[in-house]
Amino acid sequence: MRIRAVKIHTHREIILFLRKDCEFCRAQLAPSMEKLEVVHGDRTLVGTLDTVDTNYLEPGEVGLSEYAFDVFGLPEGTEVQIHHPEPVRSVELIRKKIQGEVLGEEDYRHIIRDIVQHRYSRVELTAFVVACAQAAMERDEILFLARAMVEQGEVISWGREMVVDKHCIGGVPGNRTTMVVIPIVAAYGMAIPKTSSRAITSPSGTADTMEVLCDVNLSLDRMRAIVEKESGCVAWGGAFALSPADDIIISVERPLNIDASGQMIASILSKKKAAGSTHVLVDIPVGPTAKVATYRQAYQLRKLFEFVGEHMGMTLDVIITDGTQPVGRGIGPVLEARDVMQVLRNDPAAPRDFMEKSLDLAGRVIDFHPAVRGGYGRSIAEEILKSGRALDKMERIVEAQGPKPAAAIGARVLEAKAAKGGRLAFLDNHKIAKCAKLAGAPTDVGAGVDLLKKVGDSLAEGEPVFRIHAEEEADLGYAWDYWLRHPETVGVE
Amino acid sequence: MRIRAVKIHTHREIILFLRKDCEFCRAQLAPSMEKLEVVHGDRTLVGTLDTVDTNYLEPGEVGLSEYAFDVFGLPEGTEVQIHHPEPVRSVELIRKKIQGEVLGEEDYRHIIRDIVQHRYSRVELTAFVVACAQAAMERDEILFLARAMVEQGEVISWGREMVVDKHCIGGVPGNRTTMVVIPIVAAYGMAIPKTSSRAITSPSGTADTMEVLCDVNLSLDRMRAIVEKESGCVAWGGAFALSPADDIIISVERPLNIDASGQMIASILSKKKAAGSTHVLVDIPVGPTAKVATYRQAYQLRKLFEFVGEHMGMTLDVIITDGTQPVGRGIGPVLEARDVMQVLRNDPAAPRDFMEKSLDLAGRVIDFHPAVRGGYGRSIAEEILKSGRALDKMERIVEAQGPKPAAAIGARVLEAKAAKGGRLAFLDNHKIAKCAKLAGAPTDVGAGVDLLKKVGDSLAEGEPVFRIHAEEEADLGYAWDYWLRHPETVGVE
Repeated sequence: MRIRAVKIHTHREIILFLRKDCEFCRAQLAPSMEKLEVVHGDRTLVGTLDTVDTNYLEPGEVGLSEYAFDVFGLPEGTEVQIHHPEPVRSVELIRKKIQGEVLGEEDYRHIIRDIVQHRYSRVELTAFVVACAQAAMERDEILFLARAMVEQGEVISWGREMVVDKHCIGGVPGNRTTMVVIPIVAAYGMAIPKTSSRAITSPSGTADTMEVLCDVNLSLDRMRAIVEKESGCVAWGGAFALSPADDIIISVERPLNIDASGQMIASILSKKKAAGSTHVLVDIPVGPTAKVATYRQAYQLRKLFEFVGEHMGMTLDVIITDGTQPVGRGIGPVLEARDVMQVLRNDPAAPRDFMEKSLDLAGRVIDFHPAVRGGYGRSIAEEILKSGRALDKMERIVEAQGPKPAAAIGARVLEAKAAKGGRLAFLDNHKIAKCAKLAGAPTDVGAGVDLLKKVGDSLAEGEPVFRIHAEEEADLGYAWDYWLRHPETVGVE
Repeated sequence: MRIRAVKIHTHREIILFLRKDCEFCRAQLAPSMEKLEVVHGDRTLVGTLDTVDTNYLEPGEVGLSEYAFDVFGLPEGTEVQIHHPEPVRSVELIRKKIQGEVLGEEDYRHIIRDIVQHRYSRVELTAFVVACAQAAMERDEILFLARAMVEQGEVISWGREMVVDKHCIGGVPGNRTTMVVIPIVAAYGMAIPKTSSRAITSPSGTADTMEVLCDVNLSLDRMRAIVEKESGCVAWGGAFALSPADDIIISVERPLNIDASGQMIASILSKKKAAGSTHVLVDIPVGPTAKVATYRQAYQLRKLFEFVGEHMGMTLDVIITDGTQPVGRGIGPVLEARDVMQVLRNDPAAPRDFMEKSLDLAGRVIDFHPAVRGGYGRSIAEEILKSGRALDKMERIVEAQGPKPAAAIGARVLEAKAAKGGRLAFLDNHKIAKCAKLAGAPTDVGAGVDLLKKVGDSLAEGEPVFRIHAEEEADLGYAWDYWLRHPETVGVE
């Protein structure tokens, strides 16, 4: 049979299409068959089989959904054989996990290999994610999973003894400390080649915010050249095949809104290991509307991070930070980039919490340096920032990555006002993020939320708490409606 | 927008299609959006959103996959509104279940209502199935789930004090006792309106085997009329909307090959309750290649069945039977129907194990009758069978349901022979079933496997153990290849 691209976007699911009247579908195994294998030479592709009416495919054609076509990577018209695939044997291991068994290193290797080879259907992938989320993986299992994820992807080698990194587990909007930490640490001369993600469910990822200033789609060669010269960079990690299993697993975690600690740790540390990091600072913000609600949970998570990180041969420092409200003022790519530049420029208007947190983190990263003793990293970081060397480094990095023309903050504005006077006691991270997303962030880079008050500030009745910025009138309306329906986003005492 | 049927068969998943260039997809929420809601008047349909190239839909059209179109039930061209759906709130309960919480009756009601209203994606449905499979539901939870499944579907009322039924949990091929039990029990005058399933993963379901003899697609009215006159019938249950949640849940359990006890019990008992049964005999076959491997598991399962059944207001009798090998000789619709008729005709060639098991079960069902005391049901059943009254009753039921012309056993035959002489010690239920399926059963009704020897029989080297029957040469080849590759299907000592 010949392959044909069927231009259907199926959310990272490999769907293969056959005509209902084709010989294969009429054979008796087909009615209950849910999977098909397509083979060309030594390339195989396994996917869910959907059958279609005769008007979608010519006789002798097998259709590949967009994602399937990309993964298979062969041109339309390529001759292929089709088969009933052998059952994926590692799914049996997932059944064991569902029954409460602890899986071993070889088991996780099998599972991850099959996932990376796209042999799992979305149903099977979900079963894996839920089984691991529910049984609270043993710490050894987290390690096995993380190692297997590293093995099944590219690993970058920097040829250096020390390559540092920082990572925040997320959940707090506006938390763009990476863009302050990188230039400080790089200015100190430590190699910090940062790969960041774009927003998945948030109003902006670090890659989105950095992209306001410069290009982030760097090849590995360009990244190497920049790090060679400037020690640091902020690239979009999706351009590299680091821990590809992670990307596939996330595609079902996201719609389920599951973020179980075992998988989160394996996900983060596999990416770091694959990116060639030797020393990693992990930031766990704690707060009622953050990912981690209590200090108790944060301490447990820290232990697990440390165990897995150590056994993967990395040095980890896990810092627990305040996640009770957004960090800084801006939420959305341009607004966050503005905060970053204010901090780097030592602008008196720079949000103080954002600056302090960035210095804390940069200091802890610098503490990794063998020449730094006694916790002086923080004062070194401060000196680098205050002296303007961090700003200078940032400008060189931006120049090296390829600067972009300045982007404007969304010009359509509405102000959310306090219903009563008093002390601002609460800001809901989720709801502020949602508001920023409805306003258009991150697709409209200028859209988002700008906080005018932070927790602890005093407020007069009717005084604005935050501004919504949008590029389109309709989006401003969506965000505004959301705020009107959710006044509990802001708490005044 | 207007709806259009997109003739893609998507395995009971509701897929909605929009053109990539439509205004809705270009709005900022769309890129990360995975679900869409279609509304017409008070009808809504929620499904997974796939975006398609411009050549699949006209501007202003929203496409519905085959299943989606059937579920929505409105003609092509119907004007609809499209929305970003509200998150399904009961998915939050599944997250709780994943975290190990025990859910309450109201929780299961919410979940099952949303499932029946097709609000769950396949990923969410899988999460529910795996979460319940893994945490080993509390017995109260099984009861809540079963009750919720009954509530969310039709319930048949027969207006009688006693309506009996029998059910086997499955896993053993050839086990067509229902078709012997029904005429015996009906001949005794007890109402036994049986709804049976077609094969899902097996070479034949009771509905498939009964259909060799007569029509099984009965309306409820016809079923009532037949039961009024003959006391019994064997209808295909899929024609009624009994426990529709079950059908949806099974659609993900099947590809995962998960059959967790809690869900199995809820599934079976919800169907029985909805079918109006008051007294149910449950058959649990035990054997290394049956669904339940050990007697210990079978006893636990019995306890759970009894608890849930009692609290649903049914009288249950749970019988644990021998599941070490197939029951009877024939496996596949026509071959099984032959065994059934041999037993009913008191043919000396009738497989003895099949007859004995059928009498045991029929006797236990007759024991439900308040007039039967002291366990005499079995001798009553035997008397009915031996006297020819069971055969007579079967002929009347077949006549009432609408007889079919006789179907032939598949004429293409190969014999699987013993590699060495000795005692037949083992027959693998799964592998014999697989062989029968590859030969074409149940689609080709005459195809299947005919056992010439049973466990305990002595064998000479080269003596045939079973025959493979097929209608098509190619299928005979598939089944034969499978047997050659799996000689362990048969064990000789």
